[in-house]
Order: sequence, then C-alpha cells, then structure tokens
Amino acid sequence: MSAIPTTALDRWTALHARVSRNRTLGGVLGLLEWDQQVYMPSGSAGARGAQAAVLSELHHAQVADPLLGDLARAVARDAHTDLGPDHPDGTVRAAAARVLLRDHRRASAVPAELVGRSARARSAGFAAWNAAREAEDFALFAPALAELVAVARETAACHEPEGHLYDGALEEFDPGARVADLTPMFRRLGEALVPLVDAARARPGPEAVALHVPEGAFDALNRVVLDVMGYDWSRGRIDLAAHPFTVGIHPHDVRVTTRLKPNAPLSTLGATIHEGGHALYEQGLPSAWFGTGLCRPAGAGLHESQSRFWENQIGRSPAFFRWLQPALEQATGGPIDPAAVYASANRVAPGFIRVEADEATYNLHVIVRYELEVAIFEERLRVADLPDAWNAAYVRWLGIEPQNLRQGVLQDIHWASGLFGYFPSYTIGNLYAAGFGEAIAAAFPQLPSMVEAGNLAPVLAWLRTHVHQRGCAVDAPDIFRDAVGDRDPVDALVDHLYARQGALYGIERPSGG
Amino acid sequence: MSAIPTTALDRWTALHARVSRNRTLGGVLGLLEWDQQVYMPSGSAGARGAQAAVLSELHHAQVADPLLGDLARAVARDAHTDLGPDHPDGTVRAAAARVLLRDHRRASAVPAELVGRSARARSAGFAAWNAAREAEDFALFAPALAELVAVARETAACHEPEGHLYDGALEEFDPGARVADLTPMFRRLGEALVPLVDAARARPGPEAVALHVPEGAFDALNRVVLDVMGYDWSRGRIDLAAHPFTVGIHPHDVRVTTRLKPNAPLSTLGATIHEGGHALYEQGLPSAWFGTGLCRPAGAGLHESQSRFWENQIGRSPAFFRWLQPALEQATGGPIDPAAVYASANRVAPGFIRVEADEATYNLHVIVRYELEVAIFEERLRVADLPDAWNAAYVRWLGIEPQNLRQGVLQDIHWASGLFGYFPSYTIGNLYAAGFGEAIAAAFPQLPSMVEAGNLAPVLAWLRTHVHQRGCAVDAPDIFRDAVGDRDPVDALVDHLYARQGALYGIERPSGG
Repeated sequence: MSAIPTTALDRWTALHARVSRNRTLGGVLGLLEWDQQVYMPSGSAGARGAQAAVLSELHHAQVADPLLGDLARAVARDAHTDLGPDHPDGTVRAAAARVLLRDHRRASAVPAELVGRSARARSAGFAAWNAAREAEDFALFAPALAELVAVARETAACHEPEGHLYDGALEEFDPGARVADLTPMFRRLGEALVPLVDAARARPGPEAVALHVPEGAFDALNRVVLDVMGYDWSRGRIDLAAHPFTVGIHPHDVRVTTRLKPNAPLSTLGATIHEGGHALYEQGLPSAWFGTGLCRPAGAGLHESQSRFWENQIGRSPAFFRWLQPALEQATGGPIDPAAVYASANRVAPGFIRVEADEATYNLHVIVRYELEVAIFEERLRVADLPDAWNAAYVRWLGIEPQNLRQGVLQDIHWASGLFGYFPSYTIGNLYAAGFGEAIAAAFPQLPSMVEAGNLAPVLAWLRTHVHQRGCAVDAPDIFRDAVGDRDPVDALVDHLYARQGALYGIERPSGG
Repeated sequence: MSAIPTTALDRWTALHARVSRNRTLGGVLGLLEWDQQVYMPSGSAGARGAQAAVLSELHHAQVADPLLGDLARAVARDAHTDLGPDHPDGTVRAAAARVLLRDHRRASAVPAELVGRSARARSAGFAAWNAAREAEDFALFAPALAELVAVARETAACHEPEGHLYDGALEEFDPGARVADLTPMFRRLGEALVPLVDAARARPGPEAVALHVPEGAFDALNRVVLDVMGYDWSRGRIDLAAHPFTVGIHPHDVRVTTRLKPNAPLSTLGATIHEGGHALYEQGLPSAWFGTGLCRPAGAGLHESQSRFWENQIGRSPAFFRWLQPALEQATGGPIDPAAVYASANRVAPGFIRVEADEATYNLHVIVRYELEVAIFEERLRVADLPDAWNAAYVRWLGIEPQNLRQGVLQDIHWASGLFGYFPSYTIGNLYAAGFGEAIAAAFPQLPSMVEAGNLAPVLAWLRTHVHQRGCAVDAPDIFRDAVGDRDPVDALVDHLYARQGALYGIERPSGG
C-alpha cells in the first residue's frame, strides 16, 4: 500500500502523477465519445458502452481514492512551502488542492447504491421519454421522470446537505453558481427581454434571405471561418456529426464537429463558429498545468460563453458578414448583400423549440427550464403537473402556447438523461459572452474594422489571457469579474440585444430598463 | 483486498469479469492506435503517447496481478466441476485457464528493471536506425542494436529458461512455434524455392500490364472487394493510412486501412484484400468467449495465414481477375484482359526489399531474417558482423547482393523496434495459407467458378468453422492440423507456387522435390 510521502516535494510529485494519469484517462474517454459520434460502426455500440464503462469506473475510482484526498489535503497544507525553482508557486498548488478536493468530495459523496440507481433511472428515462414522445402521452414518461427527479434530489443532497438543494446540482456543471444569485439575475433578464420580443413580434422586421451552399463547398467555408478565429489545425480537426459537439481530449487534441445544411448554410456556419469557440477555449487551456487538475474549463457556463461570444458577438455582427462576403459568394456561387444577410441572420421570432431559437428569445426558453427545475427541486411543483406548468411558462415568457408535447415539455432530452442543473449554463454563457463582448469592444475601439479585415488574433489573445489561460484556478464568476470588472452581465446582454435586434426592428430600450 | 471466492461458480465469474475488463482495455488501446495512424492531429503525438502508456500500464498490471494467476489456477482445478446450464463446459474453462496463465506468466516473468531497459533500448534503437540509414553507416546503429539483442535475449530467457532461447521470443507472437520445427521446415522450403526462382529469372515471363485508377475511383473498388469477401460493414469501416493495417477493437469493431496507389492499383487492391483477410479473422472470433481470454487470434502466423489466403490463394488466382474484370474496367475506364492482368500480378523477380517481393521470393527474404536471428540468439553471429552475413545470405538464397545498407540490413524497422521472433510469422502464414487453400479447394471442387461468380460465402464459412471460431482455445499448429490433416505445409506451398508461377514461366517441379 502506498502511504503519504514524507516531504512536501514528494507529496506534490505524487499528487501530480496521479492527476496526470487521471486527466489522461479522461482524455481517452473523450476520444471514445468522439469516435462514437463520428466514425464508429453501428454494430459496435455495445462494445463501446463496455469500454466507456470500464474507463469511467477506473477514472471514478482514481478520483474517489482516499489517498488522493489525503494527498490533496497535505498539499493544501504544504502550499506555501518552497519546492525549488522547477515547481509551481503556492497559489497554484493551493488552487490545485482546492479543485481536486472538490472533485474528490463529489466523487466520494454519493453512495454506490445511489450511483447504480441513477444509471438505471437514466436508462429507463431515455426509453420512457422516447415512448412518451412517440405516443404523445406524458403519463408514459412521468414515473421514470419522477424517479430521475428523486435520484437527482438525493444526489444533490449528498453534495449540498445544508444550502439550497439545487446548488448541489449546479456545482456539477458550474462551480460557483448559486440559486440565490441566478434567480434574481434570470428574472431581471427575462423581464427586460419580454418587451423587446413583444415589440419585435408586432413589426415586420428584416426579410429572410435564402442561401444555398452545395455539400462539397462547405469544407472550404468551415475551414476559412475556423482559420480566422485562430483554431490550431495541428492540434485539432473538423468532422461531421448529427449533433455538432467539440471534444477536448487534451489541449493539444481538440476536435470540432459540424453538420451540413445546404439550404441553411448560416445554420452550419453558426454551428461551426459555436464549436470553434468551445475549441479555442480547450486549445487555450494552460497545458503546463495538465497534472495539477487546473488545466480544465471553469464550468459549463464559461465554456458556453466562449462559443456564444464567437457565434453571436462576432459571428452575427455586421462586420463579420462583410468579412465573410467573398467566401460566402464563392460557396453559394452568387452575389450576396452582407447587410441583408446580417439582418436575416438576426431575425426575432418566438417559437416553441429552444435549439432553433434566435439570440433574443433563446434565454427565455432557458428561463422556463430553470424556473421549473427549481420549483421541482423545492417541491413546489409535482412531476405530474409539469406539462401544464410548462405551457403556462411559455405563455408567460414567450407569449405562445405549445400545441403538443413534442413542442412542449418533451422537446429536450436533458431531463430524460438525468441532467438537472445544466440548462442555466446556456444563459450564463450568454451573459458572460455579452460582458466579454463589451470588454473586448472597449479594449479594441476599432473592433468592427478588425473583424471586417479578418484580424481576430488580438481578440483571441485577449480571451487567452483573461479566460483560457486561467484554467479552473478560480471559479467562473471570479474569472468573469477579473476580466470585465463590476459590469452587470444582465445589463450587458440586454444592451447588446437592443443594440442589435432592437435596432433592426426600430425598437429602443425603455428608459430605466 | 479481494480473495479467491469459495465456490467454483464464483471463481469462474470473478475470473471472467477480470478478463472482460482487461480485454476491453485492450480494445481501447487498439482504438488509440487506429486513431493515431488515421485521424489524429499531428500536434497531439505527445498526448497520445501518454494515453497509450497509462492504458498499457493498467492493462499490464491487470494481467500480472497475482490474484489473476491464483484465480486461473483455481479455475484450471475447477474445470470439470458442473457450473450449471449457463456456463461453459470444462474444456473451455480449462483452455481459458491455460492461455490466461500463459499470459500471466509472461507478464510476471520480466523484472520491471528489464521492462524499463527494453523501452529505453527501443527508443534509442529507433533513433539510431534512422541515423544509420541517413548516414549509410551501420556503426551508428550497431551499439543500439547490440543492446536491443541483449535485452531480447534476457527477456526470452525469462520466458524460456530451459529450452531454446529463441522459443521464448517466438512465444510472444506464435504460441506453439519452436525452433526445432521451424528450422528444418524453413530450410526445406528455401531449398525447394531456389530452383523455381532461378529458373524464372532465366526466362522472360509474362509482361507487366500498366493500369491506372484515379484516386476517386478507389473507394468503390475497395468496397466491392471487401463486400465479396464477406466483410461486415456494420462491424467495421475502411480508411486510408500510410502503412495499411487492421485493428480488432472488438469482434464487433474491426477496422481496415489501405493506401491509394493510382499507378499501381493492384498494389492497393492487394493491401485491401490482405487487410480484409485479417479483418475477417477478427470479425469471426468467438465473441461469446470475450471474457474467457479465448476470443483472440491464435498467433501472428495464423493471423497472417488469413490475410495471405485471401491475398494470394484467392486474390491472385485467375478466376479472381475474371470476377474483378467489370469493377476494374469501371475503375480504370478502359477494357482489361483478366488473363494478362493475372499473369502480370504474378511475375517473379528477385529483389532486395522484402515488402515489395512477389509471392515466390517473399519467403526467401523471411528465411534470411530467421536464420540471422537464430544465429544471433545462439551467439554464432555477432551484431558487428550482421551486414556481411546479411549480404551473404541474400547471395545464397536470392542470388543477388545488396549494394547498400538501405537495400540490405537496415531496410526493416523490426530489429530497431526490438522485434525479434516476429519475422517467422510471415512465412508461417504463407505455409498455413497454402494448406488451407488446398483443403478449401478439396472441399469445393468448383472453387474457381465460385470465385468467378463472386460466391465466396462458403469459403468464409469454412474459415469461420475451421479457424476463426476456434479463437485461441488451442495453439495454431493444432488448429492447422485439425483443419487440413497431416498434409505437409511446405509441400502445399511449394506445389502452389509451382502450379502458379511455375506454370506462368513454363517450369515444372523437379521430381522428388
């Protein structure tokens, strides 16, 4: 049996070696996932499931190993011991010990019985969700969902025995996020957006521009866009997937996927830029910290801020379409008017489906899920009452009422997969992205002409310094605050949406808003 | 700590679970290798090295775990205990215990110090080999090769402390192969082939047919060939790689690679068929035995027999080119004469480079390596004398003398990678393939018309029954004997080569040969 080494240097070295191995295993799990979505033969799904299970078990056992906890606690005590010139300073070691202990506590907190019950509930939940969608009958999903909720609440209680139960779910995805902060922030955001969306709905707005790009022309278009963003091809690649995603196997191996929509090429481009934003974050993580546990994204919300910043703040700006014009003309084979394409890409239209929503209404969809999840966690809402509560929330926030369950409560797979506490990340990402957008516009007063010239390297450099290179040495709210100061992200996002969609529809932000 | 379970059923179940996990990890290592050769970004070579190292270490620790040895020994004793209707019979459990104990002994036999020294020697060896090739100076490679030989001999001695030292190296690749059997067999084969090759060299022989297939036409051609062989696309795929290979991640996930040679399309087809033969073997392994350790190929030589059977016995036969004619005409865009292409594909021409050799001379290249390796292991030959011994062996067996080191002793990467005992597999494969070819021709007297009609399912079914489905429950020599009886494989291969190359060159097999 290994024991705790007797010197501070040896304790740090031992912890570092363990974390390196664990992060390396995590990278292999990423590769398994990438391969499964991109190239794996259909007949090997069963074998792949076994491979992922074996590696996940090993990965979990490493994090939950009591010796890892002992080592991390010892390193936290040692943090200000001088280890000599080749070793990180005490701040880094203290931060490493902090995040490793958080992981360790989370991995150790849930009894094996509950882990197993959770896996069974997810498996049953997915099947029931499919059956309920097929039959348009929520009752087929309700019992499985009730078990998923019970498991999620019990699991959250293991992590957050004292504070708000939902904080225990949030921490899994967004360390540092709290119901006490999110609820008023989301409320203010929603209330500021409703008048904008209502006013836009009442007006004709810009016309939709129809574009067509043949499948064979997409590769060049995707590459030119990732190139201008600064994606490093020696440390990544692009492939096609039914549901675009990005995987960070290691900061030196970050792979993007997209999907081809010949009759909606801006949708493909949006997906490519979005995934490219995720990928820049992963490629920019501090690889020198790989074995410290700090070479990781600081949460799903901050991750989403990187994709949204590029997708919306840059990729839906007027200057971006001017830059894109020659490449888009080459791909479509005809002349395009960048101003018209810009306007078309920013139309506002409340709809039922979150993943198809425009930039202004998107957050209202997320607010619906967040409020329902919190109500369920607080036991103010019962699973059986969800479909009605869902529809009422859509009427309240988006002014439209879903006509069936696929347009309504059964549209997202998240709950069927046991994901509670994840939806907020989407709007946290938009909020942070708006803040970063303002800070970057302030840092580079000539930003639009830089975008139009395809000179985005300074923007990436700013993000590297203020976001990517910080890894998870501090939590996302602190990274945001250090980068943009005290600016309220709700105001930043609302200002951004009025400046863009408001302007296109001739709507001014109400004073005092 | 785990201990040995108290019932035979629990002991078997525990062993099975461990072996399942271990084989699953092995599959993931296969995926890492595939990805590295096919899609991995260049910049992540370092990260991939770390991933493979972490998984290899875990894999090795599982096999070397003393508890695995104890379990396997207990299962060997339990083998004839009735476990009830859902469990394998005693023969299977005894076979499983036998191969698992062999793996366990091999994994435990080599001291950690020697494992580390071996890794360092390989790493230094590869660099020195490259430098020596660059400078055309064997002296730059000699010290590294001497260390590789020393390590290989010491390692073999750990495995084979009593019998012939080289048998300890052979067992790694071809369990059941012995110097005492191979030396006379290879000698007889070589002596029978020299007159055929000499006679062929003295005659004009068939003309070379020049063919061209554009890169874009290869995919259809590769697919039609793998289709006719019976490759299961739901459990595999084909990609491009600089050095074609096949990886069996699981019997349900077996991936083929090939390379495109527009001006040598038969070389591409040969590679595709060769890899397809390997893949059929892996797809045909008994997946129900996955957790027993018996769902594995019974050695490199038997593996090679499957690729060679399809590549040479089927894929270079006259009937195959008649079957291929329409697809090849479509790919080349012009009419082809199948008889002329057949003859061109079977020309005999002694050369210096093994991997470019024709079917008749190929085995002479292997015999050169084998005799040199055995002489080095027996310390009858010193590393410093290798270049001269190599050239003398080429004069003796192929009648030609290499003019430089790249044509000579530095052409293969095997020794630089520490691979001693592997070369014989190539000729063992050809020998077995000839035996299987005869047995299949006897089982299907109408074989040529079946091939011409693309009706190869009965051939695959024969291989499934007599080779693939046996896994490694018995060693390769026994699988071969059970499949073809007492037929001498040397006679079978020599008969085959006289019947094919001899006929094309008008040479008859000497009587009494």
